[in-house]
Amino acid sequence: MDDIDIAYLTEDKVQADILIEGLPGIGQVGKLVVEHMIQELGAEKVVDIISIYLPPQVLIDPGGVVRLPANEIFLWKGDEIAIAFLIGDFQSTSNEGHYLLADAYLDIAEELGVKRVYTLGGFGVGHLVEEPRVLGAVTDEKLIEEVTGAGGAMTGDEPGGIVGAAGLLLGLAAERGMDGICLMGETPGYLVDPKSAGRVLAVLTRLLGIEIDPTRLSEHAAEMEKILARYEEMERGKEEESLNYIG
Amino acid sequence: MDDIDIAYLTEDKVQADILIEGLPGIGQVGKLVVEHMIQELGAEKVVDIISIYLPPQVLIDPGGVVRLPANEIFLWKGDEIAIAFLIGDFQSTSNEGHYLLADAYLDIAEELGVKRVYTLGGFGVGHLVEEPRVLGAVTDEKLIEEVTGAGGAMTGDEPGGIVGAAGLLLGLAAERGMDGICLMGETPGYLVDPKSAGRVLAVLTRLLGIEIDPTRLSEHAAEMEKILARYEEMERGKEEESLNYIG
Amino acid sequence: MDDIDIAYLTEDKVQADILIEGLPGIGQVGKLVVEHMIQELGAEKVVDIISIYLPPQVLIDPGGVVRLPANEIFLWKGDEIAIAFLIGDFQSTSNEGHYLLADAYLDIAEELGVKRVYTLGGFGVGHLVEEPRVLGAVTDEKLIEEVTGAGGAMTGDEPGGIVGAAGLLLGLAAERGMDGICLMGETPGYLVDPKSAGRVLAVLTRLLGIEIDPTRLSEHAAEMEKILARYEEMERGKEEESLNYIG
Amino acid sequence: MDDIDIAYLTEDKVQADILIEGLPGIGQVGKLVVEHMIQELGAEKVVDIISIYLPPQVLIDPGGVVRLPANEIFLWKGDEIAIAFLIGDFQSTSNEGHYLLADAYLDIAEELGVKRVYTLGGFGVGHLVEEPRVLGAVTDEKLIEEVTGAGGAMTGDEPGGIVGAAGLLLGLAAERGMDGICLMGETPGYLVDPKSAGRVLAVLTRLLGIEIDPTRLSEHAAEMEKILARYEEMERGKEEESLNYIG
Repeated sequence: MDDIDIAYLTEDKVQADILIEGLPGIGQVGKLVVEHMIQELGAEKVVDIISIYLPPQVLIDPGGVVRLPANEIFLWKGDEIAIAFLIGDFQSTSNEGHYLLADAYLDIAEELGVKRVYTLGGFGVGHLVEEPRVLGAVTDEKLIEEVTGAGGAMTGDEPGGIVGAAGLLLGLAAERGMDGICLMGETPGYLVDPKSAGRVLAVLTRLLGIEIDPTRLSEHAAEMEKILARYEEMERGKEEESLNYIG
Repeated sequence: MDDIDIAYLTEDKVQADILIEGLPGIGQVGKLVVEHMIQELGAEKVVDIISIYLPPQVLIDPGGVVRLPANEIFLWKGDEIAIAFLIGDFQSTSNEGHYLLADAYLDIAEELGVKRVYTLGGFGVGHLVEEPRVLGAVTDEKLIEEVTGAGGAMTGDEPGGIVGAAGLLLGLAAERGMDGICLMGETPGYLVDPKSAGRVLAVLTRLLGIEIDPTRLSEHAAEMEKILARYEEMERGKEEESLNYIG
Repeated sequence: MDDIDIAYLTEDKVQADILIEGLPGIGQVGKLVVEHMIQELGAEKVVDIISIYLPPQVLIDPGGVVRLPANEIFLWKGDEIAIAFLIGDFQSTSNEGHYLLADAYLDIAEELGVKRVYTLGGFGVGHLVEEPRVLGAVTDEKLIEEVTGAGGAMTGDEPGGIVGAAGLLLGLAAERGMDGICLMGETPGYLVDPKSAGRVLAVLTRLLGIEIDPTRLSEHAAEMEKILARYEEMERGKEEESLNYIG
Repeated sequence: MDDIDIAYLTEDKVQADILIEGLPGIGQVGKLVVEHMIQELGAEKVVDIISIYLPPQVLIDPGGVVRLPANEIFLWKGDEIAIAFLIGDFQSTSNEGHYLLADAYLDIAEELGVKRVYTLGGFGVGHLVEEPRVLGAVTDEKLIEEVTGAGGAMTGDEPGGIVGAAGLLLGLAAERGMDGICLMGETPGYLVDPKSAGRVLAVLTRLLGIEIDPTRLSEHAAEMEKILARYEEMERGKEEESLNYIG
């Protein structure tokens, strides 16, 4: 195998206008959005990527069939736009691997004819968020208006960086002359967060000018809310109990 | 030396139908099984592998003679099946090395004509197991029936992965069109476990259609049981003593 | 991208007599000095360096525009001396990367015609320093007199080493037959230290025979002093309060 | 620079019968022996090795002159034997680097015509040793008699390995058909140990059939004994004091 092994699964010429990245990360926000879009749009897998920079293991699917950790590209062709989705099991296990994988993804994107890259993620705030904002970061000032026009807030006030594929894909895309927009949903950081993912989906679909039924994501979010409510109730119960002991 | 240095120890053309991996791992289960098979069948060493991805040290054999850490391939030719065994001192010290070594093992396997890979290991459960099950994982659904028919249980219910050579050899074998079956004996995880190894051997030999005398492995297991029993007795003794102090 | 990607931003032939390095390090002393010099002299960026050995992330500039972590070379041409400045966001994330980046910087320096390298940094002492000394280290004995003549003290009494780019650039410059001088301002180590940077600037400009207005650096240092004074007052306040509790 | 940069410092043809390694390690035993031999014999430096696998820093020599961490080969030509000594500042910072450096050292050794490699080190026992033994390990059984004949004991009873250059040089030398002997002086492990170094020197010179005045090493050992004695006295003093407090 090569250090990064790229397998095209179709002999058809595949083309896409944009790439949307949703690899695992904070609150799994990006992954939830891209998984939802792939399901709702019925996108098809066209590229399979395995690499020595991914964890050295296999994953066991239900039933007991194993597979290598992989990152994958799915394709959906609408009437006005063709979208490539980048999704996968893991990010790189090494610093250098992060760069090399991001560069390989952009090689594929360029071959597909992609002109713009969206990267999705969570913005960890360390506490529950009632109304999570969607924070944007861009490769060029000219893109700011698009993001704010679609309901995103710019991250300029909060210093810092975007670590991993969501960041590097933007930075390396700019080097190649592609546009890049990162959308990050505010999220506690310690929970899988479909509510935050829903907000990111809303801003993203407005940016893309397509419609995607958010129902399944909303249902998932409602379930999480219930679980959290039950958990909080239990915690309150424990507290009262311990107060009773003292009293 | 090359990053991975492969030395064939014979000039005869070596060929094998299957490869069985038993590198060090949880409870040393895989290693115990393959060592036992090599001894019982009288398999011969045909390949020696040293690598910069193995620990940077030498091992001192009894008597004071040193040798580099190595992984080795042994060969046994039966009437109906020829088996290559992969065994060794260590697994890779780095994530990337795990991939590169597994890929090198499969290069050798392909050259030997191997069509199917078995990987053996322990499945750590964190406590003593009275009747350890043998859990199977496969590269293809069509192999499930073989495993269950030979007394293995499928791992599908327990999520997770198989880390290291036992996992990667399956995943990378599938990429090359080879079949792969992993057998994992349930084991505490903190003990060398010949009992678990005995169960894996039983399922494996049924799968292979060969017979191997398990006596030595059973004796080893019986010894371990005695040691554990003595240890438990001592622990109980201590407990009673400390109760006496209190009383 | 290459492992280290060097982009020249001008088609003019760029030349420099000396290279001054001020990458991030202890007390940010070197970075403060070089940033100050670039601003005061109006040096222009001529080279952009990105690399897989820098952290795998992007930085978000105010306003929300992202950029890859980069190291950069600025150029200033005076009447009698042309200076290349090396500045940047980060140092290497790996040991090997430190060597490979330093070697690449010196490739550029050689192409520019550089004959001497100055590296700047902080010398952490672990406590506040009223009158920070500037300690020098050199690639050749013949350079000692220059350093002490300009007000620097030699480090020979205090054993140890200089870690990272400030050290390696000297060591590798010597291998190429270039001269090298390292100037380190004493600094607590746990604070950004413009006062120490001011002292390094003073010694450095004397060595270079150029004048640079230190006002902005002095103002920055005065601000830091005020912040520290306020902080100490607060700490004393807390102490007295806690004494009152006890009393 | 290359990943491992080897510079020959003489244009004369250099040749050696044996290589003796004394890189930094447990108790600095090996380094003390080789430094002593180089000084007593007046060996001359013939090769300088720098590498990205050594720590990314420079060392500051007394007086303030810096130099890259290096490993070096010295040469001494006696009437009956020519010896190459390998000594240096550090061992590799990475596992892979250990292999690559050891392999490079043996490339040089082969070019010098070396037929046998001695590696020297400490054998950490975790406590002070009144009469430290010298433990031997060899690449071939036929060498055992030589070691025991010279006063060394074989390590065969104590299981384990030899980590780093002292081990790998033997293992990789054997792959090239060279003989190899490792001599390890018993040592606490937490102290620089010239006494243990003296014992290793004694066995080694008997093996080599040369004489080397051990006086300086003995003086160094006597000094260490005094320091230890004073330290123990102080510790006893503290103990008695604390007993007085209790009493």
